[in-house]
Amino acid sequence: MSLTHFDQQGQAHMVDISTKPTTAREAVAEGLVLMQPETLALAQGGAAKGDVMGVARLAGIMGAKRTADLIPLCHPLPISKVAIELEADPDLPGIRVTATLRTTGQTGIEMEALTAVSVACLTVYDMLKAAEKGMRIEGIRLLRKTGGKSGTYEA
Amino acid sequence: MSLTHFDQQGQAHMVDISTKPTTAREAVAEGLVLMQPETLALAQGGAAKGDVMGVARLAGIMGAKRTADLIPLCHPLPISKVAIELEADPDLPGIRVTATLRTTGQTGIEMEALTAVSVACLTVYDMLKAAEKGMRIEGIRLLRKTGGKSGTYEA
Amino acid sequence: MSLTHFDQQGQAHMVDISTKPTTAREAVAEGLVLMQPETLALAQGGAAKGDVMGVARLAGIMGAKRTADLIPLCHPLPISKVAIELEADPDLPGIRVTATLRTTGQTGIEMEALTAVSVACLTVYDMLKAAEKGMRIEGIRLLRKTGGKSGTYEA
Amino acid sequence: MSLTHFDQQGQAHMVDISTKPTTAREAVAEGLVLMQPETLALAQGGAAKGDVMGVARLAGIMGAKRTADLIPLCHPLPISKVAIELEADPDLPGIRVTATLRTTGQTGIEMEALTAVSVACLTVYDMLKAAEKGMRIEGIRLLRKTGGKSGTYEA
Amino acid sequence: MSLTHFDQQGQAHMVDISTKPTTAREAVAEGLVLMQPETLALAQGGAAKGDVMGVARLAGIMGAKRTADLIPLCHPLPISKVAIELEADPDLPGIRVTATLRTTGQTGIEMEALTAVSVACLTVYDMLKAAEKGMRIEGIRLLRKTGGKSGTYEA
Amino acid sequence: MSLTHFDQQGQAHMVDISTKPTTAREAVAEGLVLMQPETLALAQGGAAKGDVMGVARLAGIMGAKRTADLIPLCHPLPISKVAIELEADPDLPGIRVTATLRTTGQTGIEMEALTAVSVACLTVYDMLKAAEKGMRIEGIRLLRKTGGKSGTYEA
Repeated sequence: MSLTHFDQQGQAHMVDISTKPTTAREAVAEGLVLMQPETLALAQGGAAKGDVMGVARLAGIMGAKRTADLIPLCHPLPISKVAIELEADPDLPGIRVTATLRTTGQTGIEMEALTAVSVACLTVYDMLKAAEKGMRIEGIRLLRKTGGKSGTYEA
Repeated sequence: MSLTHFDQQGQAHMVDISTKPTTAREAVAEGLVLMQPETLALAQGGAAKGDVMGVARLAGIMGAKRTADLIPLCHPLPISKVAIELEADPDLPGIRVTATLRTTGQTGIEMEALTAVSVACLTVYDMLKAAEKGMRIEGIRLLRKTGGKSGTYEA
Repeated sequence: MSLTHFDQQGQAHMVDISTKPTTAREAVAEGLVLMQPETLALAQGGAAKGDVMGVARLAGIMGAKRTADLIPLCHPLPISKVAIELEADPDLPGIRVTATLRTTGQTGIEMEALTAVSVACLTVYDMLKAAEKGMRIEGIRLLRKTGGKSGTYEA
Repeated sequence: MSLTHFDQQGQAHMVDISTKPTTAREAVAEGLVLMQPETLALAQGGAAKGDVMGVARLAGIMGAKRTADLIPLCHPLPISKVAIELEADPDLPGIRVTATLRTTGQTGIEMEALTAVSVACLTVYDMLKAAEKGMRIEGIRLLRKTGGKSGTYEA
Repeated sequence: MSLTHFDQQGQAHMVDISTKPTTAREAVAEGLVLMQPETLALAQGGAAKGDVMGVARLAGIMGAKRTADLIPLCHPLPISKVAIELEADPDLPGIRVTATLRTTGQTGIEMEALTAVSVACLTVYDMLKAAEKGMRIEGIRLLRKTGGKSGTYEA
Repeated sequence: MSLTHFDQQGQAHMVDISTKPTTAREAVAEGLVLMQPETLALAQGGAAKGDVMGVARLAGIMGAKRTADLIPLCHPLPISKVAIELEADPDLPGIRVTATLRTTGQTGIEMEALTAVSVACLTVYDMLKAAEKGMRIEGIRLLRKTGGKSGTYEA
């Protein structure tokens, strides 16, 4: 098997998608920020203490729009939807981030979904790092994609 | 305890560092991309097949420079060093990414190190996703920081 | 009434436009920079003194292209026209900025027009602030929009 | 009087600040978004309806960091503080935006403060435009600056 | 003859392409970095010494995506392919850079191809400048374009 | 000889400058855009026809500020001066671009000067390409640098 991001000489290129059909596509990705219960309590302090999850959600949405700037071989894509859920989960304990993105384009929107999750997780870390430097970002993965020639993927 | 990124009314702000001394600072962060052994073999194909790790390293270095664009409350920092290691580890199996950054500034460079690792991991995913969509990014964390008022942290 | 940029739980999202039709859209916005007559005279010094309005026009055009980077919940749009007029008006006294933008897209181009005007006004301020710090940017507003489901709006 | 952003031939340049001393500087700017009382009520709906002011505050903070990208002749500056207040004022009726920024640098931070206010006002407009397209952004101005050779300015 | 990037008053604008048809377009551009034979040998050191050409190729690909940010009157375009060749040519002596880009859009992709070549050449210079500051970038030009109303151009 | 942008394993890195002294530095670079005499006449049409050189100058100044975004291993630098000359030279025939930049920093500002020249040349090409696609960008080179450990360089 060869990798699509390289040509036959092994040189990186942005692969030609000009003859692919434009179709509706969706991708859902998730990630976790694991922390101590006391840190999670701080993140849930509510509006009076500071809306950690609201800031991270916005950062993730804006981060999705920077994907093609960050990932060298990604095509720029016209994103038509970004929704990001942040949920405090005391069983982790930590915060679960889920991003759902849509485009109508010639290639998939998986990297935008994974980038949105990553930037939201990094922002959670940034907001809480004064309380706990040992937090970990775990389990960033694609949950589902639909649309395009390769069809539907479910994790 | 209150969070430094919010004021007393719980409103987000970029905290005032104007009276903090300018000191030498370093941060080391790490992350993993877990994959099937066959996928790892593809990533190690060498220059003739395509330099997956070289592309990811460069993406991570460039990503570090975009940290203040991505993380809402991060101060822009004059980065003075970025080194990123990518190591294939058959025991994971997967790729271990380690980033070491330095600055001489008024605040720490942890977020830049974590961002460099995240962007490098996302790029590994992008390069290999045609082979395996089920890869996972795990264990993004701060290994060490030195410098600044809070001193040294070791994970 | 609820706000389209928030979901039913009050969480910000980039609203789904994937099923909206692609149509021709135009938006016209305006703004004013009010200043002393002596400052306005400086702004009209001509090419030998420096083309304040030419610099501001270019900044506005380039600023329009950064709209989706600046406004968190804006969709990226393929801008197909930007024209910016800067007119010295001794009755204000000051400079009137008018921007006309077009796109063929799934959502309106009002924010791009307002951003173009804002960046042009800020640049006028920057070019002239050594002469007068008390200038004011006033009356940034949408004059007209056409296209899309909500149809034509005239101020 | 000549304008500092142009040379003796009237050509735009980024003026040489390399021999200016590095000093502590602060700038405070303000702007208003005027709207109908019903629109203002929507903006004050609280967390359950959507945090309009929280989103605009974050956009203003991030916008401040893009100032040198947007304003052609602005020097890049190491911003050391950004605080943005958004206050609903029923007497306008509308929202008053006030930004306070600090740097330790060789030139003033006024443009960053005015840019932060402008981006926050544009974001308020974007969040509420489905309810009222006739909102106006008014009164963007510098309230105060301190530091640097020209000393203190008060509006 | 008048220039399309200016209106009848000589004011710069981003020209209206909203009524132009969307067609397949391709552009090929080239450039050279001339250097001493010893410097060229360093650039060909191989993976053990450092992959100068791989870094420059990636920089060129990423630079192509920034074209509309850099060139004031360029329309943003959905790039669908970027391939960049870097070839050591002992007869120059130096490195020949060739970029081939495609889009399906309303305007040509020549500026993206020329920007890709320029950024790749600048990166070659940066990687090798410790060895030779006297390198020169020469012969950046359009080799070919196809598609659009003006049809095919061959240098 | 080894290349400073690679480590001993041949891996690209952003080299550590944290222990280098902060000194005053200047770089001067130049480049040419060669064209037919008729095209050059269009470029000199004056304000009534459109200020080609004014637009290119501004693009070059703004491009200098994006250098660290474009060139992968460049350190971000606090630019303290950018001046760009564009001179019509009938002997070429064409336009000569010269950029002079200053910083007070830990590394040289050569890449910023070369990037400013390149972006200005690309913009000249863009403004005039409707008249002549066969223009060539030639002779981009460093004329002079001062400051830093390696001292003064004159071409």
